[in-house]
Amino acid sequence: MSLLVQKYGGTSVGSIERIEQVADKVAGFHAQGHEMVVVLSAMSGETNRLIGLAQQIQDTPDPRELDVLVSTGEQVTIALLCMALKKRGVDARSYTGGQVRILTDNAHTKARIQSIDEENMRADLKAGRVVVVAGFQGVDEQGNITTLGRGGSDTTGVALAAALRADECQIYTDVDGVYTTDPRVCERARRLEKITFEEMLEMASQGSKVLQIRSVEFAGKYKVPLRVLHSFKEGPGTLITLDEEDSTMEQPIVSGIAFNRDEAKVTVAGVPDTPGVAAKILAPIGAANIEVDVIVQNVSADGTTDLTFTVHKNDMSKAVAVLEAVAKEIGAREVRSDDKVAKVSIVGVGMRSHAGVASRMFTALAEDRINIQMITTSEIKISVIIDERYLELAVRSLHTAFGLDAEPSEGRVRG
Amino acid sequence: MSLLVQKYGGTSVGSIERIEQVADKVAGFHAQGHEMVVVLSAMSGETNRLIGLAQQIQDTPDPRELDVLVSTGEQVTIALLCMALKKRGVDARSYTGGQVRILTDNAHTKARIQSIDEENMRADLKAGRVVVVAGFQGVDEQGNITTLGRGGSDTTGVALAAALRADECQIYTDVDGVYTTDPRVCERARRLEKITFEEMLEMASQGSKVLQIRSVEFAGKYKVPLRVLHSFKEGPGTLITLDEEDSTMEQPIVSGIAFNRDEAKVTVAGVPDTPGVAAKILAPIGAANIEVDVIVQNVSADGTTDLTFTVHKNDMSKAVAVLEAVAKEIGAREVRSDDKVAKVSIVGVGMRSHAGVASRMFTALAEDRINIQMITTSEIKISVIIDERYLELAVRSLHTAFGLDAEPSEGRVRG
Repeated sequence: MSLLVQKYGGTSVGSIERIEQVADKVAGFHAQGHEMVVVLSAMSGETNRLIGLAQQIQDTPDPRELDVLVSTGEQVTIALLCMALKKRGVDARSYTGGQVRILTDNAHTKARIQSIDEENMRADLKAGRVVVVAGFQGVDEQGNITTLGRGGSDTTGVALAAALRADECQIYTDVDGVYTTDPRVCERARRLEKITFEEMLEMASQGSKVLQIRSVEFAGKYKVPLRVLHSFKEGPGTLITLDEEDSTMEQPIVSGIAFNRDEAKVTVAGVPDTPGVAAKILAPIGAANIEVDVIVQNVSADGTTDLTFTVHKNDMSKAVAVLEAVAKEIGAREVRSDDKVAKVSIVGVGMRSHAGVASRMFTALAEDRINIQMITTSEIKISVIIDERYLELAVRSLHTAFGLDAEPSEGRVRG
Repeated sequence: MSLLVQKYGGTSVGSIERIEQVADKVAGFHAQGHEMVVVLSAMSGETNRLIGLAQQIQDTPDPRELDVLVSTGEQVTIALLCMALKKRGVDARSYTGGQVRILTDNAHTKARIQSIDEENMRADLKAGRVVVVAGFQGVDEQGNITTLGRGGSDTTGVALAAALRADECQIYTDVDGVYTTDPRVCERARRLEKITFEEMLEMASQGSKVLQIRSVEFAGKYKVPLRVLHSFKEGPGTLITLDEEDSTMEQPIVSGIAFNRDEAKVTVAGVPDTPGVAAKILAPIGAANIEVDVIVQNVSADGTTDLTFTVHKNDMSKAVAVLEAVAKEIGAREVRSDDKVAKVSIVGVGMRSHAGVASRMFTALAEDRINIQMITTSEIKISVIIDERYLELAVRSLHTAFGLDAEPSEGRVRG
């Protein structure tokens, strides 16, 4: 008998029929003797509908009132799920964020959880009730309703699991786990049984958007075992664990291949190699609200250097306009840009203890005659920028090179 | 400068356009220097939509969870109105029932208000803010969300006005006041400038359903001046006042004519005239959940009597079935029923001090050859049961007989 926190997203509670299915699932776990805390999102589309109403009044709706408005979405689903559980003879009680008391700061629309009062939930669990909590919302010290920002229901789930010291936090979603890479690009991609929090963060920020990043950080910080599962298909999903737990196990070197098609490359060439010049280039980019991903500066030759970085494709022309002015000011030679690029990364905690990972990556790409334009590395990740035409080929090559390919039979089951 | 509590119903906030109109109105009062507390219902149709969702899951939804669900309706409108006020440069803050803290008992779906914490509202008013409160809802001692039952937003408005000792509680609705009778029946009906709480109760329970009865009782009890006005038409509406305030003024004898088409008449004839026999007849009627309106028992002749009462037309056959059994048991002669009847009443606190009111009523009906089947009287009301075919004629005759007819010009303005 375990204490489980389960979170169901908007599509999992998107209709009365779906809510009844979730009730069946939760009632099943309850019947097995588990103590159950369920966190729900709003019905899919509802949050957008509410924001749409607000925007008919104010282009940028008042943040305090926007939180009052959108927090109704989850309040609807928690009530409906409790009714569905009661219909099945399972006692249940719903809680808004304020009723739990999930205390947050007062940063409306992007609040951060400060503490959780577990007393009432404990009493309900002890009485055999299923506790159903509205995700995404809390209250500040003054009792104002706050929300945690998009995807915040994952964070609510992890935070409740941490507060209640749950045995596992299970995030039910519309995929059956975390994959070695995107199955649409590489048909031999396979579901990972386990992945570490750090790897998950690197995978997530690369576009494998299964979980909200903040919830993964939170789970890592509070050592909450996190599992991603499919809402309506059976299967063990993927367990996201602490690195240390598995340090004695044989680790694969690379856990997954991440990629991002949305990047564009901008180079300021012939930059005088003086202290502070990188800041002079990047400060106006930040001031223009352009997010920068990869930054590469090579060692200088002949007193000048080239600074290259990547931005979102949509921001490229804006970035170039900013940089033309900067280049003139600092005496750089020219600004070049290219939006026909993509980023491919290998991710794995096993890299830390294995030499030669980078060379195996570069060799695999070279064998397919894929030219590497930029390279960056971190402790558990190596990323390269390549011509976007070779993206799929690069992903498949690396997937094979690092031994990630599924057995043919495994592939068929998944499909 | 006054402290005003204004309540706007579901049709007044039924669309973004309507909410903007309400914001204009409230901003106008605020600009005149009034302290403003606004109580809102859910958008028209929303409460029914939510109940519909619940009933797809449970025929009789769990009451606690139903309150969690339907209370979201008002939470949406208060947020939207605050946004619309802020757009107009008027500072405003929304409150759910729980945030105010409107403390109720724990009778979910029909809770009663026990106390109101006015501290936060006072602080906001002092700071020049408009306070916008969700109608219809509160919280119990344990923090569970409760609702006051249908039309409960009127009660919220009156309760807030009482707690804040407001100068006036204004109920904005889709009629421009309380009329002497239904204008659809009598085209010479006219709007009353004033009516007493007692008269309003008698009028309301007779089918002139402008205000929720509980809110009128509440206003009478706490001496809150209550005004009914049209949401989007100019005009003074009707003020509902304490009798005593106007005791020195010249009172009209009769303030209005009420009527009810929904009643049916049931008679148990030849009842042995022994103590406790009326209870023996009416107890099983109550046990069968049939509501009884008028009850008449005349003095007995030859040791037996006839007991007649009225029920809703829909309940008549059920009542007759119950009474057939009772009649046999107590040795009554027969049970007769008639659903082709209607009730017409004259209402007015002026009756108390005027003799001859009843005879003027009966004379007016006699002149139109309308036969009176039953008569009941209270201190401020005389009701008669007549053949339903003569209902409209009776209303118009009495309206004229008691000097309620509008001047022709007045009638045209209203039309």
